Amino acid sequence: MFPESINNLIESFKYLPGIGEKTAERFAFSILELDDDQVEIFRESLNDVKEKVHKCSICNSLTENDICNICSNNFRDSSKLFVVEDVKSVFTFEKLGMYDGKYHVLNGLISPLDGINPEDIGLDKLIDRIHNEKFNELIFAFKPSIEGETTSLYIKKILSDLDIKITRLASGVPIGADMEYIDSLTLERALNDRKEIE
Amino acid sequence: MFPESINNLIESFKYLPGIGEKTAERFAFSILELDDDQVEIFRESLNDVKEKVHKCSICNSLTENDICNICSNNFRDSSKLFVVEDVKSVFTFEKLGMYDGKYHVLNGLISPLDGINPEDIGLDKLIDRIHNEKFNELIFAFKPSIEGETTSLYIKKILSDLDIKITRLASGVPIGADMEYIDSLTLERALNDRKEIE
Repeated sequence: MFPESINNLIESFKYLPGIGEKTAERFAFSILELDDDQVEIFRESLNDVKEKVHKCSICNSLTENDICNICSNNFRDSSKLFVVEDVKSVFTFEKLGMYDGKYHVLNGLISPLDGINPEDIGLDKLIDRIHNEKFNELIFAFKPSIEGETTSLYIKKILSDLDIKITRLASGVPIGADMEYIDSLTLERALNDRKEIE
Repeated sequence: MFPESINNLIESFKYLPGIGEKTAERFAFSILELDDDQVEIFRESLNDVKEKVHKCSICNSLTENDICNICSNNFRDSSKLFVVEDVKSVFTFEKLGMYDGKYHVLNGLISPLDGINPEDIGLDKLIDRIHNEKFNELIFAFKPSIEGETTSLYIKKILSDLDIKITRLASGVPIGADMEYIDSLTLERALNDRKEIE
């Protein structure tokens, strides 16, 4: 019904997460109203992202160079390593601007039920790195879940012979949340992790 | 913070209607997970939509040819003309599959308050077409609004010397709606347009 190129564009927009037929149509029509320059930048950046962006050879975060900005920044605290389950987490915490150490990005979390074993998430590289660089503290920032817990415990066990502090992000009731809508696992964790008021 | 090409892609996604920073980031990261082929189709379709798609020389709908599929389809009823305010309406009604006549797309609706006058929405072309082709019925499918009303009345007045039936879509309470949430203008229209139960 639509001209073919509009159909193709609609199909392309449907690859984006959470985008169905109607929104994809709205996006496609909105492209018709953009300047030629804007569309050209759009096309180039699609290409560049696929051509230029790859994993940092040290931490697995994304970069256009061999080593990412964070790994190559000597002003950052190299005694702390923040271990995350995906690249997005790096950017989330960098935006927050409260952490000045290094990162390491795993390829997901261990999940035996889904057939994801320790060797699938790139633990070897992490363990090698921890042995080679002298970190004082490892901070796990995994999603609070069984998979996050499993992965944390597994890494901790492997490193049991090393003298290194291992922490995880606090888990509990989010700020502003209504108690009655919080699930029981979160409440249980919040109770177990309760802090003394000083 | 992001590699430059990812930043550019995020900015491009923000041109899409209703897309803010967070969603644009999510879209940009999702592109990294697409196959090269899919990204290539995406890039090509962005280009084709800008290069190949233009207005049909008869009805102003979109096409990759000189004349759109609907205007060039001799099996459609050429005695009825559906007048709409934008191209999207054509596709909305075509999807519905209940109308088999011709279309004419205006460039919006008359809106003196916004400085949009009859000459701005391409009425000349519509009036010429109505004089040249022998339509029995004009169907106005404008958004129910003051602008839609104004445009309908204006066209009707210009055509007052022609023997042509002019109708508009019924306006009233949508199916499944809760009466208490319907605005008073809609209720008023539904009352005025009430139909006898046969």
